[in-house]
Amino acid sequence: MDLNYFQSYNDLEVHQLMLQDSTRNQAYHKAILDNRDDIKGKTVLDIGCGTGILSIYFAQAGAAKVYAVEASDIYEIAKNVVKENNFENIIEVINSKVEDVNLPNKVDIIVSEWMGFYLFHEGMLNSVLVARDKFLKPGGMMFPESATLYSAPCSLPSYFESWGNVDGVSMHSFGDKLRAEVSKKPLTCTVSPNDILTEPEVVIWLDLREVSQEELKNIKAEQLSVSNRVGKYQGICLWFTCTFPSYATEPVTLSTSPEDPETHWKQTTIILPTEVETEIGTPISYTLCLNSSEDNFRRYSLEVTMQDPNEVEHPEYCPCYLTKCILVRAMLEKYEKDSLVS
Amino acid sequence: MDLNYFQSYNDLEVHQLMLQDSTRNQAYHKAILDNRDDIKGKTVLDIGCGTGILSIYFAQAGAAKVYAVEASDIYEIAKNVVKENNFENIIEVINSKVEDVNLPNKVDIIVSEWMGFYLFHEGMLNSVLVARDKFLKPGGMMFPESATLYSAPCSLPSYFESWGNVDGVSMHSFGDKLRAEVSKKPLTCTVSPNDILTEPEVVIWLDLREVSQEELKNIKAEQLSVSNRVGKYQGICLWFTCTFPSYATEPVTLSTSPEDPETHWKQTTIILPTEVETEIGTPISYTLCLNSSEDNFRRYSLEVTMQDPNEVEHPEYCPCYLTKCILVRAMLEKYEKDSLVS
Repeated sequence: MDLNYFQSYNDLEVHQLMLQDSTRNQAYHKAILDNRDDIKGKTVLDIGCGTGILSIYFAQAGAAKVYAVEASDIYEIAKNVVKENNFENIIEVINSKVEDVNLPNKVDIIVSEWMGFYLFHEGMLNSVLVARDKFLKPGGMMFPESATLYSAPCSLPSYFESWGNVDGVSMHSFGDKLRAEVSKKPLTCTVSPNDILTEPEVVIWLDLREVSQEELKNIKAEQLSVSNRVGKYQGICLWFTCTFPSYATEPVTLSTSPEDPETHWKQTTIILPTEVETEIGTPISYTLCLNSSEDNFRRYSLEVTMQDPNEVEHPEYCPCYLTKCILVRAMLEKYEKDSLVS
Repeated sequence: MDLNYFQSYNDLEVHQLMLQDSTRNQAYHKAILDNRDDIKGKTVLDIGCGTGILSIYFAQAGAAKVYAVEASDIYEIAKNVVKENNFENIIEVINSKVEDVNLPNKVDIIVSEWMGFYLFHEGMLNSVLVARDKFLKPGGMMFPESATLYSAPCSLPSYFESWGNVDGVSMHSFGDKLRAEVSKKPLTCTVSPNDILTEPEVVIWLDLREVSQEELKNIKAEQLSVSNRVGKYQGICLWFTCTFPSYATEPVTLSTSPEDPETHWKQTTIILPTEVETEIGTPISYTLCLNSSEDNFRRYSLEVTMQDPNEVEHPEYCPCYLTKCILVRAMLEKYEKDSLVS
């Protein structure tokens, strides 16, 4: 099982895609250079170094030693890249799973680009946490330091709207079948910011210095969003951001939000079997479950359950159009006005 | 073997890609509507009808009967699409390989979208020719009627140029390995018209009313191109065009040239192990072989052999910079001038 995982990464075209994702590279690059005062002379562990680009950034920033661990055959390329950039004296490429590595000492910094589609796909974070608990000095730095997964109801016009007239032919039968098929699994695609119907909700925020493996096994978020436009609720859009350590400067955030420039992660969507029309104020309620499978922690299942917004708890101040929330809003506003007067 | 071929087509996402290729759809649509006077009341065979879009176009153009043959499970969707467009009385969807179909009568028209990457990939044309010989009335129409495969030496900057500085890191080792890997097979990618170094040469032109299966087994083209710019010869770019019948109007051509809007076929490239610098007038000589395998006519191998331009025959009037050709040009020009004077 693990063998398959590492073999799929032998695919050079996957690495080509990642290396051509400048948003990704530049977020790490800037975060590392911004912290060069804290990196100088330090020891770094790069988990799943791939072609070695992040290790090179740390060497450029003045790290004394970088252990670049890579389980797949791509480690051979990383070795050559290190040589080509004249950092053989600083970066040591190790062909191993990080779980099997032995290091002479603990490290000051761990770096990894472990994020998969919808953050958790492929479950590489688990290996990062194992290594953190084993190798990171107390108070050591994590690159990235935190990660947030967001969700928001969205429209998916290319799956719902375009089938009424495909260059002169009605193709609803095809569109229906396509949606039935693609709704079985999370879909990687680009969602326009105009198709996001609500403010995003946080599914989970992870402090990567603290979070335990246990906390990642079963993630559940009960979301209540309120549509801020007239639209069609056709799916759930998921994306993540990662934030890097920062002492001296504004922290660097790598974002895969629909609002930000496209990355190779794009967005992940879960398509609904049928669409729901929304107005301004329509409450949308759903539960998101991310469960790692018992026999293979790399495999996450992603489940969405629709809920009746009438049957879930709304926040104290809820902008939705349900009578209950309109009444509570009116009361709260009156109360606020009264306290200002008295 | 054939089973695998048809199962891969069950993939709805492949059909989604094709249906969203408006250049493709609209070329067929226009060609069919332009010929509506010759289609009215006629019988049509649609080979590999997929979702049925081309059959619908013929029904819209007034065909009396369309046999829509589809071997994969997608035929079920085609049936629903036909129903949804109210052409059940005209279009008969048949779930079969065309080689196994029996029709009550010969047909007036054959339509198929059989073109694969570099025209021949997947070798579906063979089935079209079998059906043509069996079912098309003498003088019947073929949509498309002809196809041309072109080749031209090109630059491939995303494989050769970008690795010297990947967001601050020298990645030649990766670029070299990537090229070594991708040069083993034809690559589907988009080539900018600015990266085409020479006028294109025809690899093969097919009159689809006449061409035999035998002629498609071993295709060989010895190309001599002359660079019309200072650049880097890094690969061979292949693309095709298809032309539709036309009696009354300008013929419609579906083009996948780098000069024309992108289609889902993009272009096909063969990457060279090393690059060659070119000037205006540099002769480039290569042989292209397309061989269908003995045991599976759907599998083509594509081979490029570089040749020394000094050792191949140049055309009588050759614009290249080899001394021999410069001399011949000077002589021909002088001869022409002299004949004008006398």
